[in-house]
Amino acid sequence: MAASRVLLTDLYELTMLQAYFDEGLRDVAAFNLFVRRLPERRNYLVACGLDEVLGLLETLTFDEEALAYLGTLGQFSDRFLGQLATFRFTGDVYAVAEGTPVFSNEPILEIVAPLPEAQFVESLVMNQIHLQTLLASKAVRVVAAARGRQVVDFGLRRAHGLDAGLKAARAFHVAGVHATSNVAAGQAYGLRVSGTMAHSYVQAHDSEYEAFRRFAERYPGTTLVVDTYDAVAGVRQVIALAARMGAAFNVAAIRLDSGDLGQLAVEARRLLDAAGLFRVGIFASGNLNEDEIDRLLSAGAPIDGFGVGTDMAVSRDAPSLDIAYKLVEYGGRGRVKLSPDKRVLPGRKQIFRIEKGGQVERDLLGAHDDVLPGRPLLCKVMAGGARLPESRKTLDEIRTHAMNEVQKLPARLRSLVPADPPYRVDLSEALARHREALGLPHER
Amino acid sequence: MAASRVLLTDLYELTMLQAYFDEGLRDVAAFNLFVRRLPERRNYLVACGLDEVLGLLETLTFDEEALAYLGTLGQFSDRFLGQLATFRFTGDVYAVAEGTPVFSNEPILEIVAPLPEAQFVESLVMNQIHLQTLLASKAVRVVAAARGRQVVDFGLRRAHGLDAGLKAARAFHVAGVHATSNVAAGQAYGLRVSGTMAHSYVQAHDSEYEAFRRFAERYPGTTLVVDTYDAVAGVRQVIALAARMGAAFNVAAIRLDSGDLGQLAVEARRLLDAAGLFRVGIFASGNLNEDEIDRLLSAGAPIDGFGVGTDMAVSRDAPSLDIAYKLVEYGGRGRVKLSPDKRVLPGRKQIFRIEKGGQVERDLLGAHDDVLPGRPLLCKVMAGGARLPESRKTLDEIRTHAMNEVQKLPARLRSLVPADPPYRVDLSEALARHREALGLPHER
Repeated sequence: MAASRVLLTDLYELTMLQAYFDEGLRDVAAFNLFVRRLPERRNYLVACGLDEVLGLLETLTFDEEALAYLGTLGQFSDRFLGQLATFRFTGDVYAVAEGTPVFSNEPILEIVAPLPEAQFVESLVMNQIHLQTLLASKAVRVVAAARGRQVVDFGLRRAHGLDAGLKAARAFHVAGVHATSNVAAGQAYGLRVSGTMAHSYVQAHDSEYEAFRRFAERYPGTTLVVDTYDAVAGVRQVIALAARMGAAFNVAAIRLDSGDLGQLAVEARRLLDAAGLFRVGIFASGNLNEDEIDRLLSAGAPIDGFGVGTDMAVSRDAPSLDIAYKLVEYGGRGRVKLSPDKRVLPGRKQIFRIEKGGQVERDLLGAHDDVLPGRPLLCKVMAGGARLPESRKTLDEIRTHAMNEVQKLPARLRSLVPADPPYRVDLSEALARHREALGLPHER
Repeated sequence: MAASRVLLTDLYELTMLQAYFDEGLRDVAAFNLFVRRLPERRNYLVACGLDEVLGLLETLTFDEEALAYLGTLGQFSDRFLGQLATFRFTGDVYAVAEGTPVFSNEPILEIVAPLPEAQFVESLVMNQIHLQTLLASKAVRVVAAARGRQVVDFGLRRAHGLDAGLKAARAFHVAGVHATSNVAAGQAYGLRVSGTMAHSYVQAHDSEYEAFRRFAERYPGTTLVVDTYDAVAGVRQVIALAARMGAAFNVAAIRLDSGDLGQLAVEARRLLDAAGLFRVGIFASGNLNEDEIDRLLSAGAPIDGFGVGTDMAVSRDAPSLDIAYKLVEYGGRGRVKLSPDKRVLPGRKQIFRIEKGGQVERDLLGAHDDVLPGRPLLCKVMAGGARLPESRKTLDEIRTHAMNEVQKLPARLRSLVPADPPYRVDLSEALARHREALGLPHER
């Protein structure tokens, strides 16, 4: 049987939902979605995935197949299944704009809704914000390492499934990646799609030269992969092709995908230049990540663009975030959780970002009704289950916002190494008092 | 615009496809899908994901939206788009049965089809086999560490997207995981779904005791999470509830989700036993993985089951496999790729698994027409684009197969530490000769 999207949830959300309904626990609750601690190699995160979440919340309904399946589990009453048939998300959502840098304990999303609704959407909301925030936060490092050179997403084949492959391309675009090889992402999000050629194309021809000739004639401005057999010999074939094709020769770049990319790039550049092919660029791929790109460019490798796959697509050095979705208020009262290392700050929140001379200086994490200096980051994007117009932004607007906001961060945060000191996030007096009143220890 | 499933591919697959069509390169090609090197902490992989791939191959068609989108890219001729409209996968597929342990360089899949078809499916096939093989190979370690105790999948919220969350539950089941919290996976695959309660349920009530009472009365056999405020105090509330409910008390377990799980389990067990609640089990969750479970059980922690989320769902210690899909034969001739560290063995293959006294001893990787001792692992599962009956197995058959095959592995492979020596995979004489004739160096 096919899976119902609405059932992409944890069973306990449904058992709790039934209990909430039966117990009449329908007062308004506030949940915060936040990351407890940043991964060691992340100085900031790039909030991403909100658009998808709002779309899911707006259209969340239990289809007949879902209800029929739940009926087979022996835990749910007919009365409850009837309630699910008309279940909708009717709450409000406050969120940090996609593309905004965020830090530990800062709510990326605050959901304010009747308890059963706010509870039920937990798994779906976490899954989607986690994925895109994780991947945008990785990609922004790769883009920084590339120092303005093009980065192309090659990650589909090793992304974790098809949803991840698609959403990755979107998150990467937000983070400044130039293009994606994923055609469906081009279709879904209007992204620039880009591709070169595979080794198998070369292998399928009787000679590398013949493969290059055919592809170059068919696709002006293409990129030829030169390392199927021997990269330097491959470059010589490209040069031979240029000599033969003369003015018709229009190859944008060669691609190096294996071996010592730095050394091969130097050699390839030398050969291409000696043949007058100054305008043929060098594109590199193969197990690249931000560290390797940084190393290559720091050593002066003449590389013009990078295809980055697996490491970026799975965020290899930090493949998950310590993301949490926690009840902070119910029935107008702040709620706490005191589990060791998993404490939650009670009450609805606002983040105030304080800038000085065009640079971000620090954040104040406050109560939602605090009036404090700085720019409030949490904005209402959904009211009564309907998206507000201000929640609809084009992907390019989001990307531009991300680039601007990242640019305003102190340089130490934008570097690839852990920022020392890390970014400063202070608690507002109201929040600190709230915390103290609950007997919580002082901590950052 | 929504994404067309058929476009979940890399752009170069389509540009190469057009070139193959135009050049008349339609001879039969064989591609091997294999993992070049195993991650450091994997002694073997568990092949998984075949069923999904065969389903995708059988139904692969270009819908009108996909063709319309491709038309906007300016790279594809009307003639080619017309060819895509009738494009189908008509090839043969040979595969290792799902649940079978595999090793580096062993084809998990061999696709034999007209070159354009075999090439085009690359990204989709890799994405899906990579995901489920990655996750089954991680989960089998977690199951081994749990030494027969139940392992429940709690991974949906931090799995990389919805497809990953769903497929993860399937792969985990194959690897021996007992149940999943993911309701959609229960629906789609008939898996056992399981869940406890969230801290937010406790927080939403005026007292922990009241929350426990309500939930326990409603859900006989449930599990109560005790660490919202203080785990030991929480256990005492459960004991108080048992005293009050008397014979009606039916709680299967308490759940510990934070703190020193080993120490808390000992204390909880002592308190429960002292109250005569011998049958109330202890279930642990919170940042668990195979190492932590092994550590807890080796120290004698009285834990009866484990909820494992993020680490298993993203395969944190090895979030990707070095999986490759490479042309090995075209037009009846073996094809090679010589890129450094990315060499490909030419020709179609067969894997022969040699057993001795009920234990697997070593593999012989041979040519597909080799006749050698041992059990051949690659079987034909699709012919002319249609699934063969033998490719249809129930998920429980696959799981049983996996358990049996893993059990036959030498103990050093089933341990959590790197096997010394690693599993032995020899090349058959025919394959070694083939390799030598192409001037390839000897290597394992």
